[in-house]
Amino acid sequence: MSQGSNLLQADGERLWRTLMRSGEIGPGRAGGLCRLPLTGADKEMRDQFIQWCEEAGCRITIDRLGNIFARRDGDEQALAPVLMGSHLDTQVAGGKYDGILGVLAGLEVVRTLNDAGLRTRRPIEVVCWTNEEGARFQPPMMCSGAFAGVHEVDWILACKDDDGFVFGEELARIGYDGSAPVGGRDIDAYFELHIEQGPELEERGIPLGIVTGGYFTRGMVIEVEGENAHSGPTPMDKRKNALVGAAMMIVAANDIGWDQHPPGKSTSSRIIVWPNKPGILPDYAQTTVDFRHPDKKTTLDMEAAMMAAIDDCCERANVAAKVVQTWEFGNEAFDDECIALVKHAADELQVQYQEMLSQAGHDAYHMTRIAPTALLFSPCKEGITHNENEHIELEYTTPAVNVLLHAVLARANR
Amino acid sequence: MSQGSNLLQADGERLWRTLMRSGEIGPGRAGGLCRLPLTGADKEMRDQFIQWCEEAGCRITIDRLGNIFARRDGDEQALAPVLMGSHLDTQVAGGKYDGILGVLAGLEVVRTLNDAGLRTRRPIEVVCWTNEEGARFQPPMMCSGAFAGVHEVDWILACKDDDGFVFGEELARIGYDGSAPVGGRDIDAYFELHIEQGPELEERGIPLGIVTGGYFTRGMVIEVEGENAHSGPTPMDKRKNALVGAAMMIVAANDIGWDQHPPGKSTSSRIIVWPNKPGILPDYAQTTVDFRHPDKKTTLDMEAAMMAAIDDCCERANVAAKVVQTWEFGNEAFDDECIALVKHAADELQVQYQEMLSQAGHDAYHMTRIAPTALLFSPCKEGITHNENEHIELEYTTPAVNVLLHAVLARANR
Repeated sequence: MSQGSNLLQADGERLWRTLMRSGEIGPGRAGGLCRLPLTGADKEMRDQFIQWCEEAGCRITIDRLGNIFARRDGDEQALAPVLMGSHLDTQVAGGKYDGILGVLAGLEVVRTLNDAGLRTRRPIEVVCWTNEEGARFQPPMMCSGAFAGVHEVDWILACKDDDGFVFGEELARIGYDGSAPVGGRDIDAYFELHIEQGPELEERGIPLGIVTGGYFTRGMVIEVEGENAHSGPTPMDKRKNALVGAAMMIVAANDIGWDQHPPGKSTSSRIIVWPNKPGILPDYAQTTVDFRHPDKKTTLDMEAAMMAAIDDCCERANVAAKVVQTWEFGNEAFDDECIALVKHAADELQVQYQEMLSQAGHDAYHMTRIAPTALLFSPCKEGITHNENEHIELEYTTPAVNVLLHAVLARANR
Repeated sequence: MSQGSNLLQADGERLWRTLMRSGEIGPGRAGGLCRLPLTGADKEMRDQFIQWCEEAGCRITIDRLGNIFARRDGDEQALAPVLMGSHLDTQVAGGKYDGILGVLAGLEVVRTLNDAGLRTRRPIEVVCWTNEEGARFQPPMMCSGAFAGVHEVDWILACKDDDGFVFGEELARIGYDGSAPVGGRDIDAYFELHIEQGPELEERGIPLGIVTGGYFTRGMVIEVEGENAHSGPTPMDKRKNALVGAAMMIVAANDIGWDQHPPGKSTSSRIIVWPNKPGILPDYAQTTVDFRHPDKKTTLDMEAAMMAAIDDCCERANVAAKVVQTWEFGNEAFDDECIALVKHAADELQVQYQEMLSQAGHDAYHMTRIAPTALLFSPCKEGITHNENEHIELEYTTPAVNVLLHAVLARANR
């Protein structure tokens, strides 16, 4: 019997049952989840999560953006709490684990501490961030961002989805327009466990990734201006088809990603066209592209290549274009002390780990701005994610949950 | 004074007032019209048109698809009628004349005959076809097509727009779900006056185009199948981004149009993507492309080039695709006798004309299948159309209206 087995262990089977219950709420078309934020499914999941937390003795606080904090008291209540969590919303065609594992693993940590009768010096809070995915309201990681002071609360409350529904009204509709202020309080540390969303851990048979940084990501929204005209008689050299211009830019962005592959990548996954009808050339198109590379300078080079490509596409398609929004993430620094706690817990538990970079955005990125933060990865099958076939095996997940448990326990007793 | 001036003349000023009144119904964003079929604006225009026709002594019949027939009796009521007309619906960003001129010129012909106290042997009917543009329900020229037996009535009634509204329900909602059967009766001839939608007549200073045929047009709807995945970690060589595949196809279609320019052209003006969100690679895209050339074989060559390009794009984007719908038009034959009547009228009126091909689809195309048909063009400014800045000058329009008047008069007395 290994040394690790003598240490306190989370109940993997209980965590799995909790994940499976979550996996019933907001079913997708193909076995996964479609649990968009501020929908009925989101409300049902939030209600279930709060019920579980209350059964575990936690006190619930909901802030003005619907972020949920389930607090397990510490012996010294005035001390800043240790937070752990992630998000319960999914993509339109999402899996059952992306984000969800991080929240429900936090719940499992609380339950395990309860079962063992362990108290901690600092309070511990399990947090569910609203709208991490950006699948309904953009940008993603919206409400952890507001918590960290990156976005204004009122700006978020006024955001609209593609159908014109307003964030604040939808939040009130599901009854999660809480009264607590967003952020503005001391957080001792933040720990987030997330599925890797890449194939590396599984391929190497390693159950834990410790994230030391992110792929540097730059994104932009491009608006293309053309001119309405008849799709029939208008000669090719008189056409100003905004869709053709946008299509050229999407192809150009894709080429730029290939130029840096591997490890660089580029994405365009969204386009809006008006009028978007047969018979009439569209005068408006909008598309969203982003570029990712572990090396910041290379990402900036990719972005510069895109700016040049936009000019070229405008000339070829006889349209005008402008970049109306840009963003970046992945440049955040995780905390050495928190990482050291995680490594120590992994060593004690004899859990093999590797350091790695995150290629996706996470609520933990925002949290680095206001609290010492660590981000842990556990394996997912073939790296498939943002796909209803996303899959994990409990056997390869429990080790990371136990590491989370011991890192949080140590931090909360600091 | 020219010989032509002794002949019966339409009242251009009255026609213009009628057009201007129509131009107030369903205003667009930029001075033109947004009069989509089966909307409140469409109903208001139909009500106005019927009021005008009834004031001109016509009897109204509305068929099951909302096609409106305003009948001016002939001396021999049992004889098949002569029809003239076009459509009153517009594109989302449309002009005040496309289609509308043809219907209201028909009304002006009736009014002119009334003023002159002229009766005709055959009945004359002014027709307004439902949903010519295809701006809300596809395909375009939908209800003249059903009249000509190309589409099933029940199939059209079940068609949905992009928001899921059902054609038949919307037709009933505006009160234009008539009881008359669609088609199935003898039509002696069909005359349609339309704006050219190209610059040629204006550039050459010729007030009348006599259409002898069409650009042969082949269109297709392409569905692209990809795979949902995360826009971040997924390596470029594992991506199956349906939007990237569709964008490549749109660019390829555009290139094929340029290869045959002039006079060939290609269009892609519509794309549908799912989920169409940031953060997730779309697994579905659909786009619509068409190819036009006066030479049928060249159009077919363009289509074949597109089929090859689709395969190539699928390989490059790592997606699958299939063509789920195709159509063609422009191969229809207009009637020599009807054209001869038009030419004779033009000669008598001393109206200069030229023969030409139509580059757009028209209700007249469908009518060639069931009745001797002629299609007349009048100039429009710079060929601008399917654009709110579409413009005509009455001075250059009235000659074609007078030719329509005399051609229809002659045919109705045949």
